[in-house]
Amino acid sequence: MTPEALEKAGGAMHAFIAEAFPLCRSITGDGVRRTLAMIAGRIPLDVHEVPSGTQVFDWTVPKEWNIRDAWIKDPSGRKVVDFQESNLHILNYSVPVHARMQLAELQSHLFTLPFKPELIPYRTSYYKEAWGFCLSHRQLEALPEGEYEVCVDSTLADGSLTYGECLLPGETEREVLLSTHVCHPSLANDNLSGIAVMTWLAREISARPRRRYSYRFLFIPGTIGSITWLARNEARASRIAHGLVAANLGDPGAFHYKRSRRGIAEIDRVVTAVLKAAGEPLGVEEFVPFGYDERQYCSPGFDLPVGSLTRTPWGRYPEYHTSADDLAFVRPDALAGSLRTYLNVVKVLEGNRRYLNLNPKCEPQLGRRGLYRTIGGDESGRARELALLWVLNQSDGYYSLLDIAERARLSFAAIREAADALLEAGLLREVEG
Amino acid sequence: MTPEALEKAGGAMHAFIAEAFPLCRSITGDGVRRTLAMIAGRIPLDVHEVPSGTQVFDWTVPKEWNIRDAWIKDPSGRKVVDFQESNLHILNYSVPVHARMQLAELQSHLFTLPFKPELIPYRTSYYKEAWGFCLSHRQLEALPEGEYEVCVDSTLADGSLTYGECLLPGETEREVLLSTHVCHPSLANDNLSGIAVMTWLAREISARPRRRYSYRFLFIPGTIGSITWLARNEARASRIAHGLVAANLGDPGAFHYKRSRRGIAEIDRVVTAVLKAAGEPLGVEEFVPFGYDERQYCSPGFDLPVGSLTRTPWGRYPEYHTSADDLAFVRPDALAGSLRTYLNVVKVLEGNRRYLNLNPKCEPQLGRRGLYRTIGGDESGRARELALLWVLNQSDGYYSLLDIAERARLSFAAIREAADALLEAGLLREVEG
Amino acid sequence: MTPEALEKAGGAMHAFIAEAFPLCRSITGDGVRRTLAMIAGRIPLDVHEVPSGTQVFDWTVPKEWNIRDAWIKDPSGRKVVDFQESNLHILNYSVPVHARMQLAELQSHLFTLPFKPELIPYRTSYYKEAWGFCLSHRQLEALPEGEYEVCVDSTLADGSLTYGECLLPGETEREVLLSTHVCHPSLANDNLSGIAVMTWLAREISARPRRRYSYRFLFIPGTIGSITWLARNEARASRIAHGLVAANLGDPGAFHYKRSRRGIAEIDRVVTAVLKAAGEPLGVEEFVPFGYDERQYCSPGFDLPVGSLTRTPWGRYPEYHTSADDLAFVRPDALAGSLRTYLNVVKVLEGNRRYLNLNPKCEPQLGRRGLYRTIGGDESGRARELALLWVLNQSDGYYSLLDIAERARLSFAAIREAADALLEAGLLREVEG
Repeated sequence: MTPEALEKAGGAMHAFIAEAFPLCRSITGDGVRRTLAMIAGRIPLDVHEVPSGTQVFDWTVPKEWNIRDAWIKDPSGRKVVDFQESNLHILNYSVPVHARMQLAELQSHLFTLPFKPELIPYRTSYYKEAWGFCLSHRQLEALPEGEYEVCVDSTLADGSLTYGECLLPGETEREVLLSTHVCHPSLANDNLSGIAVMTWLAREISARPRRRYSYRFLFIPGTIGSITWLARNEARASRIAHGLVAANLGDPGAFHYKRSRRGIAEIDRVVTAVLKAAGEPLGVEEFVPFGYDERQYCSPGFDLPVGSLTRTPWGRYPEYHTSADDLAFVRPDALAGSLRTYLNVVKVLEGNRRYLNLNPKCEPQLGRRGLYRTIGGDESGRARELALLWVLNQSDGYYSLLDIAERARLSFAAIREAADALLEAGLLREVEG
Repeated sequence: MTPEALEKAGGAMHAFIAEAFPLCRSITGDGVRRTLAMIAGRIPLDVHEVPSGTQVFDWTVPKEWNIRDAWIKDPSGRKVVDFQESNLHILNYSVPVHARMQLAELQSHLFTLPFKPELIPYRTSYYKEAWGFCLSHRQLEALPEGEYEVCVDSTLADGSLTYGECLLPGETEREVLLSTHVCHPSLANDNLSGIAVMTWLAREISARPRRRYSYRFLFIPGTIGSITWLARNEARASRIAHGLVAANLGDPGAFHYKRSRRGIAEIDRVVTAVLKAAGEPLGVEEFVPFGYDERQYCSPGFDLPVGSLTRTPWGRYPEYHTSADDLAFVRPDALAGSLRTYLNVVKVLEGNRRYLNLNPKCEPQLGRRGLYRTIGGDESGRARELALLWVLNQSDGYYSLLDIAERARLSFAAIREAADALLEAGLLREVEG
Repeated sequence: MTPEALEKAGGAMHAFIAEAFPLCRSITGDGVRRTLAMIAGRIPLDVHEVPSGTQVFDWTVPKEWNIRDAWIKDPSGRKVVDFQESNLHILNYSVPVHARMQLAELQSHLFTLPFKPELIPYRTSYYKEAWGFCLSHRQLEALPEGEYEVCVDSTLADGSLTYGECLLPGETEREVLLSTHVCHPSLANDNLSGIAVMTWLAREISARPRRRYSYRFLFIPGTIGSITWLARNEARASRIAHGLVAANLGDPGAFHYKRSRRGIAEIDRVVTAVLKAAGEPLGVEEFVPFGYDERQYCSPGFDLPVGSLTRTPWGRYPEYHTSADDLAFVRPDALAGSLRTYLNVVKVLEGNRRYLNLNPKCEPQLGRRGLYRTIGGDESGRARELALLWVLNQSDGYYSLLDIAERARLSFAAIREAADALLEAGLLREVEG
């Protein structure tokens, strides 16, 4: 993409996020459906509904949760907490309730952040039936003694779990998995940013005439969504050659890459190389079995080569899982930069092939093919010649172009260009795998 | 052991050392027998007698040496060197002599430490027949010219080499070898400390109802003892799964571990992990083919996974092999700390197993088993959950709990505890080997 | 060699260089033949002639180039550039020309070094027919406008490519390849220094009664020479067990070693060990597929264990490929030091063998073989004993003496000496390979 197209995409992604922000998403329910509908307006998307009660490995698809309203009225009858103002106010998956109670009893249902007293926290109770409200600590402190009225107008009932899937077929069935979670309510960076960047990435890739890999985008609720997809696609999982879990892509922080369980999978090396080549600050971290859906993709029964590429990782920015993760926190330029980085990863994945030098005994005479200077001692064009010599020397069918770029300490682009010139000259043949 | 029990053991070990200190041990003879009798009073001990002249690999069991008295009288008839005052005064394995000679001739039989002029050195001549006396350099300098009378009332004759063996059988025949040398006379740290700590360790282990491994304690003379044991137990050596040579365990110095020849054997990793977890100063050193009996256990024809765990290593403290290695040099608290460290090593060896995650595809739902918090965003109990997730993620039958602890950067205890909880929940199965 | 013999050799090599300096060498022609004749006067040398037009892998042996004279006369008829003064003045491989032209036209045939204005550059055009002159930038600037007369009295015609080969057979057919380029005209360090040191090295090795390896010295034109040799000796290339490309051995700079493509071949470890043991500054660099003839030896179809051992590498000294690389730039002591270093490499290659400890179970009793002190506690002779113990402990047929020296952190010489003592005592047996 041109810098102009990227800048335009940054603005469009931010507008998309702003539109989707008010929807109350959860791991099931209409908030997810409406978000998927917005995505389906931009890329081809299959929307799947998996009935409540379906067994998925060790888990069961939960009941579907929907909410219309929720509030707390103080002893004077004034609404002091109101779901209509922010869907973070409700403990996600709260069961319905309408009752009166003293403040002391109510308090056991209230969640605040004493050390960030102005912010509303985000809390969930998916697998244990409960109800509750989240509010700022300032609000809590201002509540007078007396009898309160609370109302949660929600339903928790058999229904289904909803997720979206976009498959862009390529020349082979080997897939690149791109997975992002859609279960969070009004949190912009976590994870409308991931949803937006993956939507625009899918659109960009789908516009290309040829692709080496097939690309599978998953827009799924966290944990239960990836478990459900893996349970329904167990046999297909081995097609996944490379994968990334995308999230937190709109904040102004540096990129962070969390390696796959394997640690040295090709995706691990490709992302690391792309981030290093950008010359910006970056963090590369070892795999740990917590975080996002890489937990499931990297469980030992699958052990897929799936890492996670984010900007500031979850839990490390003060706005994380609070009402401060809002539309002002995510920025068009950060979203555009994230899209560019993912596109660069795709570019290296597509181009990182193995070749066989067809003239492996001594160097071929590059000069008579116009690929080498004719006056010995002339230094012009030297860098290009070095790239050619590196590709020839290392192309024994074992080393990939990324291996060669790293050994040569040249950019992947320079090595890829050299390989193209040598292919053109009939000096290389691609090796499968 | 409780801190109180350890403290008590420290005092008891010191008392044991004090009692054994005056005995004149050597590589054979009654000093060793009496020392073994003291050990046999505390743990079950098989005492073996191997006749002089027995061929053990490239070596021959030497004649047995016993000594009753030895002295030097100066020209005035005064005893200026007296074995009854310190058994270090005699060159160990001195043949009998009773003669008169001028100082000049006598001097070729006298050993001193010119740079530690107050101390008596410890010297031996096991394999070449000789006689001699060790004395302080001050003593030597004070000797007047004239005719001296020397007497060594010793016997060097066919007899046997004596060693003690304590086998504590476990659930399997795979053994942990604990070897310590008993051949030094009145030297407290080298090696009554090793003898005492191994005796108390054996007592502690024998008191336990179940053991994964069998434990074999050897109380042997250095070099010829381990060679003799290996020659008589050649077929059994392959049962040794892990081993340590114990010595120098009563001085106040930091622990030092010398790796086995293999360098990355499980015992090497376990001891290193235990020492690091203690948070104290420590030294970990590569294998070298000199030192104590690990020389023999790690000879290329055996190459057993045997390291050496000491406090200050041999030769690196100024008291080493001198009369300053006395009862004041070894300390009850240091002995107790050594016992604790060996017990910790045993604990990790016993607990370091491999498991198979029985629900390897995606995570099992820990929440419904009471192993996971129910409110998302709640941070209490997080550390325990991480340990559970690490064990689940890595338990593919290949990684041991110690591997997992190291990758997770969690304590072995935390990982072991998590594995126990998962076993309890039926989520793991032990894998052999 | 004794220091005196080395010093003498340094002077003799410098005299050899001075004698060969005026010859106009190129990749073919009489300059090479005369240089090879000088070498053949000192060592047994087979001189090969390969006809122009011979196909050698992807290349064709070029026409033979000879030159008698070349000059430029200025408008006043004065010779302003004269081949008789320096053979660097002619673009190497210039085709014949005799013409008159204006300065503007002439200038496209003139090569200078604007940033080193006093020096004449060295330039070639082997594979594209051209003519040209090299001169100092000062000379160029002084040329007046007007008509010039130029003359290149050369021939470029079918003939042959000439190279020299010296094979010194050893106990086995496994070869050490020593390759040096002979194609440069009056440049002393690059590469009369390499030619001289290899000639003296061959002489020294040939004088020895026994050699483990066969030694093959190649005196060849760069690139096309090694390609030609490999094409004619393809089946024999696999005999090359170790190899070095020699050049730039007379300047006062530190030694630099460029590893083979394999990176950890025995030659890489031997040279590194020899350079480190010398305790002088040194550079060890990874393989790159440009430089000298290691490019061809290390092409993926051969991948021979061939590195390059030089003093200052090509292109990194300001005199490189200019008229400043003259007789004053190369120094007898540097040449002598280079010869010594190559001899040390040969010494370690010859001595770096693998042994089997014939008494692998426990240590053999060194004392009764006179190889161990008899008084325990005596520290004299300790270093020698350690070397003996290291060799015994590690000689399981897998580790070489160099492996052992590196693990023991002892010098190769000390380990070699210990192995000799143990061989003498019948405690080791050599293992093939």
